[in-house]
Amino acid sequence: MEPGTDESNSAREIRGSHSSSKKAKDLNIEGYPVGGLSIGGHETCVIFPTLKVAFDIGRCPPRAVSQDFLLISHAHMDHIGGLPMYVATRGLYRMKPPTIIVPISVKEDVEKLFEVHRKMDQSELKHNLIGLDVGEEFYLRKDLKVKAFRTYHVIPSQITYTLTEPEIAFTGDTTSEFIVDEKNTDALRAKVLVLECTFVNNSITVEHAKDYGHTHLSEIISYADRLQNRAILLIHFSARYTVEEIQQAVCALPPPLAGRTFALTEGF
Amino acid sequence: MEPGTDESNSAREIRGSHSSSKKAKDLNIEGYPVGGLSIGGHETCVIFPTLKVAFDIGRCPPRAVSQDFLLISHAHMDHIGGLPMYVATRGLYRMKPPTIIVPISVKEDVEKLFEVHRKMDQSELKHNLIGLDVGEEFYLRKDLKVKAFRTYHVIPSQITYTLTEPEIAFTGDTTSEFIVDEKNTDALRAKVLVLECTFVNNSITVEHAKDYGHTHLSEIISYADRLQNRAILLIHFSARYTVEEIQQAVCALPPPLAGRTFALTEGF
Repeated sequence: MEPGTDESNSAREIRGSHSSSKKAKDLNIEGYPVGGLSIGGHETCVIFPTLKVAFDIGRCPPRAVSQDFLLISHAHMDHIGGLPMYVATRGLYRMKPPTIIVPISVKEDVEKLFEVHRKMDQSELKHNLIGLDVGEEFYLRKDLKVKAFRTYHVIPSQITYTLTEPEIAFTGDTTSEFIVDEKNTDALRAKVLVLECTFVNNSITVEHAKDYGHTHLSEIISYADRLQNRAILLIHFSARYTVEEIQQAVCALPPPLAGRTFALTEGF
Repeated sequence: MEPGTDESNSAREIRGSHSSSKKAKDLNIEGYPVGGLSIGGHETCVIFPTLKVAFDIGRCPPRAVSQDFLLISHAHMDHIGGLPMYVATRGLYRMKPPTIIVPISVKEDVEKLFEVHRKMDQSELKHNLIGLDVGEEFYLRKDLKVKAFRTYHVIPSQITYTLTEPEIAFTGDTTSEFIVDEKNTDALRAKVLVLECTFVNNSITVEHAKDYGHTHLSEIISYADRLQNRAILLIHFSARYTVEEIQQAVCALPPPLAGRTFALTEGF
């Protein structure tokens, strides 16, 4: 690192964020620009730049560093691996300490992670860490509220959403049981639902998807009548698919989903 | 993550490694292809693909995952941040557990880092971790030996090199004191010296460079007669510079360095 030497950096744009925003065009979903990338097993970081919010941090793509709020769904490496780098890079640029929301079940471990890094490199790694249990809420700003929901994955996991009326729901990794859980009605009526959809066609079965704590597109089709969301953004596609396979599957969606379902394919 | 579901992944090329090798052309230095990227404060990962060796892991660029041996110089975030991701991604692809060499001073903390991640996501994160003290050696293969040297940075740091005759020396971050330390003669006669050079022109002074544990190009020029290396690869340039500024500075090098000095500018 170059602590204290980067006064000129703080005045210039964060490295990489400009070039990556040139390459990747944001989706526009219900008035929200949406960026980032989500490749199952590799990295998931979904960015709502107008809210200054990133859901999960993946490998810490450059643009994530500009987001003041980070909401972590669960602690699998492809969702949390870039967390120390996110905090360190914000420190390097003298940006304000970020607010990081994690499932309460992993809060202590996340604290240990930062402690180990602080011990190894004598850095400060300033941040505000908040643990939320299922059902708990936290105000990021006066007009921006986060609430934790239960999802169904192989390890403790949660989703989060914002504003007084549910605006955005983000599932992290989950089986389709999430959709049938009656406690999740708020998420199912959020304006925008960011929903994992790891598998999209017959090369992988629904059973296989369930076994590994993930969702298959055919399950989303089956439960389509439960999804009252104005828009659905599918993420976390398996790296086995090409962008053409994903687009083909999304284009073939039946009427209840067609026209309001988007796919995040940046990086494929 | 998608544990156990990626049988098809192991057959296809590692995601990103193909596209990144298309974009970035390797340097060829004394018969060694050299890739990776090194941007001071952001990420350093220098790859010798024919040796299957990466020096430092930065943010774990995709191509690093293919390297079986990882040699870590010191534990600053921009050099070690991608370590858990590196091990996790090799596991995802069912690649053999990597051998990771770290300074003995941080070995216990690195172990803790992996323990925290294992606890958080119930993963295995298989790897062989070796701590080396200054002067200690370790055989990666019969014909590939690593030796740790002392460098001068703000935290414990080391360099490493390979083969019976010193082939490659890698400094990590260091002040120019490294060059005048008589115990480092082996590094100064290695065929290839990978040398940090964070600052390249008058916008930052030599004093400033020393204060923060880094090297200024003008110091390398001053000590040029000590560098008996056939080739010198400069890395770790500050993010404040443009690629043009770096190239201009390297092109203006005087005779003892001109013609044998390269700059790693990928990512600038």
